[in-house]
Formats: sequence, C-alpha cells, structure tokens
Amino acid sequence: MSSPTTEDDRRFVLSLGTPDRTGIVARISTFLAEVGGSIVEAAYHADPDSGWFFTRQAVSASSIDMSIDELRTAFTAVADELGPETEWTLQDSSERKRVVLLVSKEAHCLHDLLGRAAGGELPADICAVIGNHMDLAPVVEAHGLTFHYVPFPKDPAERGPAFHRVRELVDAHDPHAVVLARFMQVLPAELCEHWAGRAINIHHSFLPSFVGARPYHQAFARGVKLIGATCHYVTAELDAGPIIEQDVIRVDHADEVRDMVRQGRDIEKLVLARGLRWHLEDRVLVHGRKTVVFS
Amino acid sequence: MSSPTTEDDRRFVLSLGTPDRTGIVARISTFLAEVGGSIVEAAYHADPDSGWFFTRQAVSASSIDMSIDELRTAFTAVADELGPETEWTLQDSSERKRVVLLVSKEAHCLHDLLGRAAGGELPADICAVIGNHMDLAPVVEAHGLTFHYVPFPKDPAERGPAFHRVRELVDAHDPHAVVLARFMQVLPAELCEHWAGRAINIHHSFLPSFVGARPYHQAFARGVKLIGATCHYVTAELDAGPIIEQDVIRVDHADEVRDMVRQGRDIEKLVLARGLRWHLEDRVLVHGRKTVVFS
Amino acid sequence: MSSPTTEDDRRFVLSLGTPDRTGIVARISTFLAEVGGSIVEAAYHADPDSGWFFTRQAVSASSIDMSIDELRTAFTAVADELGPETEWTLQDSSERKRVVLLVSKEAHCLHDLLGRAAGGELPADICAVIGNHMDLAPVVEAHGLTFHYVPFPKDPAERGPAFHRVRELVDAHDPHAVVLARFMQVLPAELCEHWAGRAINIHHSFLPSFVGARPYHQAFARGVKLIGATCHYVTAELDAGPIIEQDVIRVDHADEVRDMVRQGRDIEKLVLARGLRWHLEDRVLVHGRKTVVFS
Amino acid sequence: MSSPTTEDDRRFVLSLGTPDRTGIVARISTFLAEVGGSIVEAAYHADPDSGWFFTRQAVSASSIDMSIDELRTAFTAVADELGPETEWTLQDSSERKRVVLLVSKEAHCLHDLLGRAAGGELPADICAVIGNHMDLAPVVEAHGLTFHYVPFPKDPAERGPAFHRVRELVDAHDPHAVVLARFMQVLPAELCEHWAGRAINIHHSFLPSFVGARPYHQAFARGVKLIGATCHYVTAELDAGPIIEQDVIRVDHADEVRDMVRQGRDIEKLVLARGLRWHLEDRVLVHGRKTVVFS
Repeated sequence: MSSPTTEDDRRFVLSLGTPDRTGIVARISTFLAEVGGSIVEAAYHADPDSGWFFTRQAVSASSIDMSIDELRTAFTAVADELGPETEWTLQDSSERKRVVLLVSKEAHCLHDLLGRAAGGELPADICAVIGNHMDLAPVVEAHGLTFHYVPFPKDPAERGPAFHRVRELVDAHDPHAVVLARFMQVLPAELCEHWAGRAINIHHSFLPSFVGARPYHQAFARGVKLIGATCHYVTAELDAGPIIEQDVIRVDHADEVRDMVRQGRDIEKLVLARGLRWHLEDRVLVHGRKTVVFS
Repeated sequence: MSSPTTEDDRRFVLSLGTPDRTGIVARISTFLAEVGGSIVEAAYHADPDSGWFFTRQAVSASSIDMSIDELRTAFTAVADELGPETEWTLQDSSERKRVVLLVSKEAHCLHDLLGRAAGGELPADICAVIGNHMDLAPVVEAHGLTFHYVPFPKDPAERGPAFHRVRELVDAHDPHAVVLARFMQVLPAELCEHWAGRAINIHHSFLPSFVGARPYHQAFARGVKLIGATCHYVTAELDAGPIIEQDVIRVDHADEVRDMVRQGRDIEKLVLARGLRWHLEDRVLVHGRKTVVFS
Repeated sequence: MSSPTTEDDRRFVLSLGTPDRTGIVARISTFLAEVGGSIVEAAYHADPDSGWFFTRQAVSASSIDMSIDELRTAFTAVADELGPETEWTLQDSSERKRVVLLVSKEAHCLHDLLGRAAGGELPADICAVIGNHMDLAPVVEAHGLTFHYVPFPKDPAERGPAFHRVRELVDAHDPHAVVLARFMQVLPAELCEHWAGRAINIHHSFLPSFVGARPYHQAFARGVKLIGATCHYVTAELDAGPIIEQDVIRVDHADEVRDMVRQGRDIEKLVLARGLRWHLEDRVLVHGRKTVVFS
Repeated sequence: MSSPTTEDDRRFVLSLGTPDRTGIVARISTFLAEVGGSIVEAAYHADPDSGWFFTRQAVSASSIDMSIDELRTAFTAVADELGPETEWTLQDSSERKRVVLLVSKEAHCLHDLLGRAAGGELPADICAVIGNHMDLAPVVEAHGLTFHYVPFPKDPAERGPAFHRVRELVDAHDPHAVVLARFMQVLPAELCEHWAGRAINIHHSFLPSFVGARPYHQAFARGVKLIGATCHYVTAELDAGPIIEQDVIRVDHADEVRDMVRQGRDIEKLVLARGLRWHLEDRVLVHGRKTVVFS
C-alpha cells in the first residue's frame, strides 16, 4: 500500500460498493479515463457470498482538471447508472481528516497515537481527547491537545448524562473517526447507531475468543499459546462489530496475566494504528457484519 | 530446542511436576551430578497460580554408568523425598516410541506425517493407521504401513462397536500417542479417559474460537482476519482439552471458505507436527486444563 | 485469493504489463465488458519506479461466448493499441499445466509437493521427477510418477552432458514450471536463459542473507534470531533472481545447525508451495530483477 | 517470561557463564537452596559449539535473609570453584537501572521508549537524551527529561570532540545501557570498546542483509517480500555486533520505499523495546559474536 505525503501525492479516492454485474469496472474506469485520471492504486473485490462488488481507486489529483466537488457531481451520473443501492464516497486526500479519542486509564494506545501524530504518520488531526478519568490529561496537554474530563457515575443506570456530554464533545468536531483507545465504558446502542461506521474500538483479544471483560485473564485460564487484539467497528452487540484488523503474539506457560497484559499492549497498539489508518484512507468498506479492507 | 539423531545424542530425559518448595532444583541436580550426568538441556517452571513446579532435564546417556531402569530405581528415592504428589517419568531417547494414527477422508495431515516419518524427522514409528473410510488406505500402504478400515454406522447411537474395534486396534500397539489426524468422529468419554494424556487432536481453528463443526465456515461468517489451528489433548469436553500448540495465518476478504480450507491445511500440518514432536520428546507436562511446554 | 476447483470455476486469466499511461484499465475493462466477461478477481499495480503498469484479471469463462483462442485473437487488437512493449498472456484455467521437478537427496520438498498433488491441491500435473541421485526414486514411483536418474560427475567441468540430458528430459514435457526442489547443482547460464521465467528455486535462507552453500551454517555462525527461505526465479547470477516469496521462522541460542535444518524445512516447503502455486496461476509478473505478485 | 512490578516481586538475579562440566547446576542450586532461595525463574543453556554453559536464575528476594551485597560475597566462593573463566553478575531487581538515549532526527523509537517509560513499562530510568540535532528536544523536555544537544561537524575527520562530549555526557550517568535510538553517527572504535556490552543499536534491516546506509532502499531494489529490524550490541565492525533480537514484517510490490520506512518503524520500535528490556533484565549473555537470550 502506498500513502501520500507530499502535494505531488495528492489523490482523489473513490470507494464504492454495489450489487455485482458485468461492466462495472468498465463503466468506472471509462469515466476516470474520460476525466484524465491517472490511476495510482486500484483494488476490486467481487463477493460471491453477498453478490456485491467493491472497489477502491486512487487517482492522481493533478491528472484531473476538476475540483473534488466537480468530480463528485460528475460521478453522480455514473453512480445512478449503477443503481440505487450503490454506496460511494469520493475523497480528496489533501482534505485533512479529524479524529477524536476516548480514553480511560490505560495509556499505551494513546501514547502510540500521539507519537504517530507527532511524527506525521497519522493521516488525520487529533482534535480532542475525552477521558472518564483524569489520569491521561497531562500527556495529552503536553502534546498541545485538548483533554476533556467527563466523569462517569458508578451506577450504569445513571450514565446517560455523561454519555450525552461525550456525544456533544465528539460531535462538535464532526470527526471521521471516534476511536475508543482502551475506553472502558460500553457505548449505549443509540451512540453506536449515531456513530455507525465511524466508532472504532480496540479489543484486547483475538475475537471472537474472549468477548467481554478481562480477556487476558480468560486467555490465561484457557492456556492459549497466542494472544491477540482486534480492531473493529462498534455496534450495539458487544465486541461483535465488523472486524477491520487482527493480530496475535506468542505466549507460553511462563507468562502470567501481567505478562500477557504487557505483551498484548504491543499488539493492541499495532492493530489499532493499522485499522485506524486504513479507515482514514477509505480502505475499509463495510458490508453487513464484515469488512472489505483494501490494504 | 535440540533433538537427538545419533547414538552420541542418546539422552535420558527426566520430566517432573511437584508442589513447589525451596530446594527442588538442588535435590534433582545434585542427584544428577552424583550419577555423573552431563546436562544437555534443562528447563524449569514455577507456576505461581497452581503452586506447582515443573522441570525437564535431558542428560547425556553416555555420561551415566547406569541403564535407564537402574536410573529410574535410583531416582525413586529422590521422588519420594519430593512427596507423594510428585509425577515423573524418565525416558531413554533411544527407546523408539510408537504412534497410531486415526484418519477419515482429509489427507493432508496424514501425508505430512508420513513424509516426516519417511524423512526420519518423526521421533517415533507409525505402527498403524486406522480409518473410518477407505480413501486413505492406498497412500498408507504405499509407505509400507498397515491400514485398518473400521466403518462407522450413520447413527451415532450405534457406533459403540466401531469404537470398541478402534480401541482394540490401537491398544494392540500400546502407543505413546494416538493421533486424531483429522479424524471426524467424536471420541466417547470412556476412550478419552482411557487414552488420557496420549490422544492428540488437531482442531482446524484457533480455539476457543469456533468450537465444533465447520470452523472455517464459522470463521468466514464472522469475517476474522486470521485463521488458525490448535493441537490439544483430547478430553471428554469437546475441543476443550489442554492446548499444546497453536498458530495462525492471515486471510482477507477475498478468501472464500475453500481458500481458508486450503490455507488452513498448512497451519494444521505444522501445528500438529510440532505438538506431536514435543509430546513424543516428553516436552509437554499437563497440569489441570493447561500445559507446560518446554519446547 | 480464490482458486477454481470445479467446472463452474473455470476462468480466463489475463496477465499484462505495459508502460503506464491514462486509460489502460478503461481499455481493458471495456473490452472485457464487451465480450460479456464477468470479472471474478482483478488486481492492478502502477509502479512509479519503472513507470510500468501491471494487471491480472480473472473472468468467469462461462460468461464469455468464446473459446480461449478466440478471446486471445480478439484481445490482440487491444494489446496492439497499448503498444509494442506490452507483454501479456491469456490462460484458460481448465487447461492443465505441467510441472517437472529436479531433486537431489533432500526429500521434504518433494514429499510436500507429491502430497499436495495427491490431495488435488496443486493446480498442475507433475509430469516427471529428475534426480542426480537414486535416493528419491521409490517415493516418486510409489506415487505412480516417472523418476529419471541422471548421475552427475564429480568434476564440474564434465557436467555438460548431464545437464544436456536433464534439458532433454525436461523439455520433452514443455513444462510451465521447472522446479528445483532442493536440487543441489547450479544450473549453467544457458539453461537459466532457456528456462527463464519458468525455472523456480527454493533457497534455504532469507535472501540476500547467506547466499551460496550451507546457509544454515552461516546463519548459526552469525547468531541470527530468525531463519528463512526464499522462492525465486533462477537466473545466471547465483541466488539473485527475482524473488517470488519469502518467509521466516524464529530460532534461538539453543538451536544447533541440525535444529535449524529441521525447522527450516517447514518454511522451505511452505514458501516453495506458495510461490509455485502463484506462478502456476499466472499471479507472478516479472519486471527486471523484481516481481509483482497478485496473490 | 515474568517481570517484577511490586515489592513482593523483588528478585535477586544471577547470570552466569562458564566452561561446561558436570555439576554446575548442582553447585549453584545447592548454594541457592542453602541460603533459602525460592527459585522463581531459571534457564540453562549448554552450548556444544563453544563448550560453555550459561544460566540465569531469579530467586525471590524475600526468601533470602541477606542483602544483595552479602549474597554476592557468599556466591564468590561458588564462582571461584567454577574456575577463573567464570563470568557472573548478581543483580537486585529493586535497584533501578539507568539508560541514556542517543538520537538524531527520527522520532519513532524515542517516542516509543518515552511512552513505555511513562507507562511504567521500562525497567529503568531514562537519565538523559543526547541528540546531534535539535529536532527531538521538545518531546524529551515535555516528558520532563534532559536533552543535550551535541552538534556534529560535517567532516567525519573532525567529529572527535563531539564524540568526546557525548562520552562525557553519557558517562556522567554510568548507565547500564546506551541506546542508539536511530542515532545516525557511527561510533568510533574506542567508544565501542568503552561501552562494550552496554551500547545497543537498532538497525533497520534484517541483518546480515543490507548492512550500512539506507537499508530500506536496498530492500526495495532487491525486491524482498519481508523487511526487518535488528537490535544488536555495538562493536567496532559496522552492523556486525552480537544480535539480541530481530523481527520482520511482510511487504509487497505495491510498497514503495516510503511505505517500507513507515511500516519498518513499527518493527524497529518493537525489536528495540524487546531487546532493551531483555538487556536490562540481565537476560542477555554475550559469548563471542553471539548472544544467549533467556527471554
């Protein structure tokens, strides 16, 4: 996979899903050729299971004598031909995306994302960090970012106002991604729905193993020889959303729970960073319970 | 890890588990030093969870002026000191071990083990292969080995005699390992009990994900990004026995079930071969639901 | 990646490389749409380094009302438009491909490929096996295949006639792949040239580390923590041909050379099997010293 | 592997290497048993190549009624028995270790180590960071640490005073590890000698592939399918010191050099963090050009 880093690398990125039939690629690529688009990266997937077709195409922005809005308008006619079920986006890679992070006490994913942002590695700006504990405020502020503290009451039945406050703080930025970077509160169904396709969680197990709380304790008890992490979209069903990325690391009998926790952090950081990057680069297309990832 | 392949490499291998307390290593190593034992390989594990201590020590047989039986007799006094719960074995690596394979129609694990045996890579002899289908008889016989066909009735309630026949055929060899090399019949509880610690299964998923039938179909439906295989001891609870070894391979949205099946085979073969090897070299100590693997 | 296994899965596969310019995808996909081709799998790569464009497209054969020869004829006009440098093939997946294996004494890659062929997993027929030692004749013949013994003189200067004999035996099958499955003779430059793009070697190191003889000994001496294997096209420069696939496995201080040899075999088998499969499915496009692999 | 995190976890750690002979384990473990030492972790390695024996043993500090200095004095008698070549250390895990980092412009390894230190994951204090560019001063200071700027002249022949200044700044802390966290100056031989066994480098390739400058460019040109990183002790011969840890990540034809650089960073961070941790926990024993790592 290749990522733009300079103005020369500016791209227009089309992501599209539609019921499969003959001629879709021809229609799209003819359109792109007619506007002069030089294809830098292209990927296709015809899914025999669902009967859908998915594609992502990145064209050099400098090869097209149109703005992204003009291109969108022009493409609408093509999308109409492909039928009403067609889902598509056209993005300008030079339009900076926005991310809001939700955190609790665990610092490693936050540190990792802040470090990547500082190193220019994250294709987005971190607009704000919201925490239900104060612990991580200092590191966020040391990076010159805003930390919002939203305390959560102990009684789950009374957390509505806190979630409401989080929603307001997040929505103020209209972010492309709401990242639960080891945020230890289960989102209510209405927030899952509201941020559908944008709320991304890192779960500290190789799902569907060890759903729910304390997955490393579960892994230790079962005696597995690998532990993992899963980056997935958040849905109302706990830990069951479409999976974006997973990875594992080897453990053995000498690893206690705290060792699994420590080693697992490295996998959590990597898996979240990869999944978030792909999401922000419009490489992830969701269909039903599953994802197509053009990594 | 190092494996004996010549007479010079002949080893006496002690595997031992006992409730932990100070002085166990000193007691054992002093014993080994007194009989002149040159330690080639040694591994220890103190498990804070169970309070048990485990060790495996391989000494050069040529350094000890005793037979394995004399050494066993001598060590009995040490084991007695360590207390009545102590479990131990002392093996002579030159005593060839025996394996019986159970198969159905899937050929890949069988081919792999036969190839390893032919290449001198398996530290055991394959005494017999038993199948509930005839499909794999030819390749077994081409390797000069005996194939026993034991047909299984469709009605699970009527399979008792078939299992009885399998038991007879297996037990005739008093094997160190009974390998379910993609054997598609669930062993009855009494056979699990009878072969406890010797019956080894390869399950085609990364347990505890996708217990039971058609795990690749389950993996496809869930949209996981890695598929795996698990080598474990067989117990009465399905796919829940102590895990010896696991590994995974990356898949993506373009992989259909049949692609997962094909790619998964490579992992199944590797995981079973590694797990079986460690079992045969007395590297696996079972404690409760978990294993200590001195690989 | 997805692989055909039934008549319904029969595909026509286009592989093409050409200097990059706008409109190539449109031209090809319009052609495919005009003949009714339903695209099952498509991959593209624009290489900014060389300025070339590469694609592989698999269409359902049943969607096109032409024979493969008619389709080739029809596509010639498109290829002409793309310019004289264009390199392309159109393959019918139902046309069975042919493979010849060259072996010496090491059995594991041969066993592995024979097992895969017997299991219907290899998308080709093994036409013959040629060895410069007799050791592997029995297993080849047990699989009902022909083994040719071609002894090689000790003096490298006198090996010309033996290579000539090997060439005759190989060329009699006009194979799509000549696999050096741990064949321990260095091919002369003229044979490398003659079988260019078809001769595939498995080297037992992670190239470019440890070129030449006894790579596991080199790896042991250097104290690396991973060992690997490399599947590559054979060229006149030793171990320097375009790399198709590589993989590694972890070793540690306790692994002696013989342990590396044993563990390395598993990686050699996997890497060769994957590389050969991709080659046979027209997924590998060579350009200069490098490959594009649409796996 | 298990790591101490609380007072209860305080350990005395013995690391020892000596020419192998019968009775070493017995002698050491008898000594430990006599002082009441409860062994928490123990590892052994007899190296047939060099004829040396290595061990690392961690005992619970609370089980021994001695200070670490008294224990060292007591063990001296044992070490004397084992002979004059014996090399050993006895460390108290509660004695905080010191690390100095050398950096240039690349930020990722620095960010990663600072994040781990802030998260309490690094078993040491970062005493100072020294850079030959100013770029990384702000992040260091944001973590409340001291940054020393030591500019290096362009002419390599005139860098002596700069290296002298670095040496002074480092030695002021008498650190257990001097980490070249992507420090882009080659240490002179005298500094390699002076910090022998303490200076740790992260090289951005899977050594011995791609020694020297711009390894990702070399990897791209060769068309390898995996890229890697190597953590090793610094010696006078460039990139040839004893390897502590290595790992790799998969790349493909679509990855340009900048993609390799980006993805490689994740491996560099992991490999350096693992290697440094093992070094600080006295898990790495150097013998000749190689390491024994009791991870």
